[in-house]
Amino acid sequence: MQRPSGRSPDQLRPVRITRHYTKHAEGSVLVEFGDTKVICTASVVNSVPPFLRGQGQGWLTAEYGMLPRSTGTRMDREAARGKQQGRTVEIQRLIGRSLRAAVDLTALGENTIHIDCDVIQADGGTRTASITGAWVALADAINHLKATGKVNGEPLKRGIASISVGIYQGVPVVDLDYPEDSSADTDMNLVLGDDGGIIEIQGTAEAEPFSEAEFAAMLSLGKKAIAELHKLQKQALGEG
Amino acid sequence: MQRPSGRSPDQLRPVRITRHYTKHAEGSVLVEFGDTKVICTASVVNSVPPFLRGQGQGWLTAEYGMLPRSTGTRMDREAARGKQQGRTVEIQRLIGRSLRAAVDLTALGENTIHIDCDVIQADGGTRTASITGAWVALADAINHLKATGKVNGEPLKRGIASISVGIYQGVPVVDLDYPEDSSADTDMNLVLGDDGGIIEIQGTAEAEPFSEAEFAAMLSLGKKAIAELHKLQKQALGEG
Amino acid sequence: MQRPSGRSPDQLRPVRITRHYTKHAEGSVLVEFGDTKVICTASVVNSVPPFLRGQGQGWLTAEYGMLPRSTGTRMDREAARGKQQGRTVEIQRLIGRSLRAAVDLTALGENTIHIDCDVIQADGGTRTASITGAWVALADAINHLKATGKVNGEPLKRGIASISVGIYQGVPVVDLDYPEDSSADTDMNLVLGDDGGIIEIQGTAEAEPFSEAEFAAMLSLGKKAIAELHKLQKQALGEG
Amino acid sequence: MQRPSGRSPDQLRPVRITRHYTKHAEGSVLVEFGDTKVICTASVVNSVPPFLRGQGQGWLTAEYGMLPRSTGTRMDREAARGKQQGRTVEIQRLIGRSLRAAVDLTALGENTIHIDCDVIQADGGTRTASITGAWVALADAINHLKATGKVNGEPLKRGIASISVGIYQGVPVVDLDYPEDSSADTDMNLVLGDDGGIIEIQGTAEAEPFSEAEFAAMLSLGKKAIAELHKLQKQALGEG
Amino acid sequence: MQRPSGRSPDQLRPVRITRHYTKHAEGSVLVEFGDTKVICTASVVNSVPPFLRGQGQGWLTAEYGMLPRSTGTRMDREAARGKQQGRTVEIQRLIGRSLRAAVDLTALGENTIHIDCDVIQADGGTRTASITGAWVALADAINHLKATGKVNGEPLKRGIASISVGIYQGVPVVDLDYPEDSSADTDMNLVLGDDGGIIEIQGTAEAEPFSEAEFAAMLSLGKKAIAELHKLQKQALGEG
Amino acid sequence: MQRPSGRSPDQLRPVRITRHYTKHAEGSVLVEFGDTKVICTASVVNSVPPFLRGQGQGWLTAEYGMLPRSTGTRMDREAARGKQQGRTVEIQRLIGRSLRAAVDLTALGENTIHIDCDVIQADGGTRTASITGAWVALADAINHLKATGKVNGEPLKRGIASISVGIYQGVPVVDLDYPEDSSADTDMNLVLGDDGGIIEIQGTAEAEPFSEAEFAAMLSLGKKAIAELHKLQKQALGEG
Repeated sequence: MQRPSGRSPDQLRPVRITRHYTKHAEGSVLVEFGDTKVICTASVVNSVPPFLRGQGQGWLTAEYGMLPRSTGTRMDREAARGKQQGRTVEIQRLIGRSLRAAVDLTALGENTIHIDCDVIQADGGTRTASITGAWVALADAINHLKATGKVNGEPLKRGIASISVGIYQGVPVVDLDYPEDSSADTDMNLVLGDDGGIIEIQGTAEAEPFSEAEFAAMLSLGKKAIAELHKLQKQALGEG
Repeated sequence: MQRPSGRSPDQLRPVRITRHYTKHAEGSVLVEFGDTKVICTASVVNSVPPFLRGQGQGWLTAEYGMLPRSTGTRMDREAARGKQQGRTVEIQRLIGRSLRAAVDLTALGENTIHIDCDVIQADGGTRTASITGAWVALADAINHLKATGKVNGEPLKRGIASISVGIYQGVPVVDLDYPEDSSADTDMNLVLGDDGGIIEIQGTAEAEPFSEAEFAAMLSLGKKAIAELHKLQKQALGEG
Repeated sequence: MQRPSGRSPDQLRPVRITRHYTKHAEGSVLVEFGDTKVICTASVVNSVPPFLRGQGQGWLTAEYGMLPRSTGTRMDREAARGKQQGRTVEIQRLIGRSLRAAVDLTALGENTIHIDCDVIQADGGTRTASITGAWVALADAINHLKATGKVNGEPLKRGIASISVGIYQGVPVVDLDYPEDSSADTDMNLVLGDDGGIIEIQGTAEAEPFSEAEFAAMLSLGKKAIAELHKLQKQALGEG
Repeated sequence: MQRPSGRSPDQLRPVRITRHYTKHAEGSVLVEFGDTKVICTASVVNSVPPFLRGQGQGWLTAEYGMLPRSTGTRMDREAARGKQQGRTVEIQRLIGRSLRAAVDLTALGENTIHIDCDVIQADGGTRTASITGAWVALADAINHLKATGKVNGEPLKRGIASISVGIYQGVPVVDLDYPEDSSADTDMNLVLGDDGGIIEIQGTAEAEPFSEAEFAAMLSLGKKAIAELHKLQKQALGEG
Repeated sequence: MQRPSGRSPDQLRPVRITRHYTKHAEGSVLVEFGDTKVICTASVVNSVPPFLRGQGQGWLTAEYGMLPRSTGTRMDREAARGKQQGRTVEIQRLIGRSLRAAVDLTALGENTIHIDCDVIQADGGTRTASITGAWVALADAINHLKATGKVNGEPLKRGIASISVGIYQGVPVVDLDYPEDSSADTDMNLVLGDDGGIIEIQGTAEAEPFSEAEFAAMLSLGKKAIAELHKLQKQALGEG
Repeated sequence: MQRPSGRSPDQLRPVRITRHYTKHAEGSVLVEFGDTKVICTASVVNSVPPFLRGQGQGWLTAEYGMLPRSTGTRMDREAARGKQQGRTVEIQRLIGRSLRAAVDLTALGENTIHIDCDVIQADGGTRTASITGAWVALADAINHLKATGKVNGEPLKRGIASISVGIYQGVPVVDLDYPEDSSADTDMNLVLGDDGGIIEIQGTAEAEPFSEAEFAAMLSLGKKAIAELHKLQKQALGEG
């Protein structure tokens, strides 16, 4: 088996995390996993949704989008169609759930953090890159809240990063790019905390079911890769 | 630890599968997991979506809904709001992916099977009950296609069933009902084939990450329960 | 003239009214007129819409839907299309108007009752079955409000039931099933109070206009049938 | 009992029918029932909707709207809200059904007639004025089709006109204006053919049920008024 | 060069401004520029949008629509499509901006004026006719506010009128009708105050760019025409 | 008068045009006017919209969007709201009209070019930056069509660039940034061809009307700036 990119099965694409990528958001990151590029912003609003008002806690919510020509063939613009696709909805719910696991909502006070992940160029793994980059934007936004005295405690509970793993031509591989992703037998997205705990596992057999042994091999590859990502996140924050 | 229902950790709720529940659909099943009740129909249409036309293969797609008062508090009717909720979209995509893994789309010919899962009473586990019940409706619809000579080969590749597992008060349990589901630490939905292969795993840490050991315990509980469900599906089809 | 079902012109289909059909709603009824089956729930919410706030009166509103495969050919799911059909809107307005005529809105206090009628199997006459079944669900919901001390007086002013009548092959008949309905010359829906008063009449000439004599014959058939329905409603409530 | 307008119970408001009101439509009528003013156009399109293609017959469909300030208080513009109200949907379905009863769809050939009724000033009875005026626009459009040789036979089967009747302060009255309509006990819309046949009856008890005797009195008033309207329609067409 | 209508290049079509055209609105005008006919109403609501509450100032907003058969070919009804077209949105924003320039929003107090411009017959220049007619409706609505003591000062700052100019077959002409508009090389809409100031200029090259000299010629024609329109507006208000 | 940025009245912000910014589109440009940054792509589709089929000509259409946090305060995501704002619609129509003036649609053959302008950081002048950048992306896309033999002639008729001009504190200035734009008396957007012809002029008085002299001063500033932009576009294309 030869990966189209020539990478070894456990090798990540070059990962770059650029902070302060745009100037308005409290946290703004360009994350690149090879040719996959996502702008992740974390925006602070000093209020909470109606269902949480007066309960002394905050909220985090996420939205995801792709520029129409971030992909090989132009997709319809969701704003013009008047509707988000099912895939978009599924991904933004995953991003939101994953990053809420990073936050102590009570320590956040009655603030809402809006995460926006917008793919400007897609080459596979956009959701895992989004989670990984958005966590850094989130950390910056929370640091902003602390620096400006809007929160006192520490709302950031843990590091969160994410990677895709899959079975490509019978071999477990990590961080699938688009050529791999579109022909993989199995695709799994892992979200892990920096304490090694599992935040989210989503594994899907594309054609044939996969075995527990294959699952174990993918999980092992994923854990190793996510440990690297946690390091890169900390380096980006100047804490590595 | 005492489960609210008094069940043992590995004990399913009473499961009932009633075929031919409504008269129009090629496959129509009422599936009950305890107080969770879902009408699952499989409808055959003799054509395929535009993106598949002329390729000599079929398609399967799924939709999910809840009656507005299937739940403790009345929900807005999605048809009146003009929009399906994110949760609905996520669930119907899961049902569709899972059941497509049961079908040889080439053997199906240029036919589309529409799966509709409509929850008439909810008490936790509606998506796993939907998949389990819809597979039986699918089998009936495929048998109808074969009996009427519309397909010649065997489009049904394998059995598919699904169950939820979770960590409730620190203990891994199977088939969570609503009181358990709403306070569980971790919630995982498993879809397995009757050959033991994994079709889909979706595990989510609600508050705290879960460990690999917890994951293994949940997977083990889930496999045992799904084996029972496969038996019940076959009994319902008179093949058990 | 022979009715497809072999019934005499003034003969209702077997009518069954099953209370407490689902467990969450304050009133929940499965109503069956032959093969037409509708789940009718009445849900109490302790508030009123904005246009009635502070006026010391309640409200009743109704919504109607059909499961996509309740019919011979699968219909698009309205929630997925993002829009209710004109027929749906027309029917739910009729159900709401009819049942509001059963309620003393002032005696109801600032409570809203949401009626949901969801057709799980259609064979003609879904709107008249819905009104007839929903009135029983409404009675249960109002009894619940009284039993729990949320209202003091008697908000239920009168019994309401509904039936279709039509001209089939030149002969006035009652309670048309689908084969009759789809080829009838005239279709009329009647909603009457148990005091014999007319709540709503909607008569439509499908192909040719109908005469006053035909109208009178239909009205007479309808009155007799609705008197039977009022008896069945009272029996279902244990008051018959 | 004194009607607010001083009319006798069986007295119509002044009715004016102005043909060729706008210049583009094949039929274009301004119809006035007192202060109620509706522009009714009939537009011919030389094709049919997909469900009728190739069947050698035509179609007629209707839409209804109110200018936002046609009423005492400004209403939201439906185009801006992105949704037609339930009342609008109900009315346009009534207009379409009623006028289809005037047309031999087979004689129409594969043409579609779009009826548009737009209320520019409302003072009660907009739907009955719409039907009455739109029939004249329809006649003009059909004459256009015949004059230009696009149809050979006679697609116009009969005259159609419509009026409202009601019980106002206990007395049956015809052609209710807004002050009457908003406080009437009962409201009934009648659509009759010029051969005296009933096309549509829609009677609604606003507060209390109405009796058969009241119904008969309203029907009698309505028949007399509609006979007058048929005369006015024919005069407008120069055939009276 | 011969204009299709035989007009000279600087000649307006006959302009008629009919006040009190419908009875409910505080200002209601039928404006006619030749065969272009628009109903313009100004409706007063005694509140302001949320973003202005408590700031002691008012607001003016505008909406625009065309009856489906106001044009040569029937257009889809925007309310039925569930969406306003881009052209509609663009025009109603222009009308709103232009008329806000006529109003001292602080003197208006916390009132909102809704302008509705509904085209009942189109023959080119509907947006400029709308602005010109709506200003008269606006003046009437403001006079109503002053007469009823709801405002004390003078919210009407200046007169506003609008005209189209263009290059037709190489010659600058004013007030283009549809045959000219659909084949013009350049189309420009001018909105001027009665003090000669420019409120809005929108010039578009349809096929070939236009020169500064052409621009100057068009501007000169437009200024002259708008001066006439200001006179006609004042005459309509009885102030001319 | 001192501009907030310290620029002289006729001084552009630093303009950067980066080609091949993303890898999938036939033309892909990052355009920066100071802190305003827009990704402009031109995507080729080998077909035309239905209204142009079989006419042997092509089409160009444009869409515009802003990332939710491209601005100082986060805006709602239009895809999630299900609707594009009026401002968005207005801008994308301007971009489309302007760039169509650059293209010989007949020479383009039956191809459609989709322009997408997505603002990743906003600081005033996003629409003029979009047009200027999108023209370069368009040139690249057309070169791609020529290089791959899909068109034979030269569809690119002329250069197009755009700038904003305004009156800031009484002084005409060019290329307004956000602090200027939000307090300017007048705002005008100019689109000019590289032959000096006017493609589009849109001038709006924000508070007080502007005079012809002010207009002339703004036009003069704009022409000079656009000549610079045409040079920068050609340099970016390696033709300068």
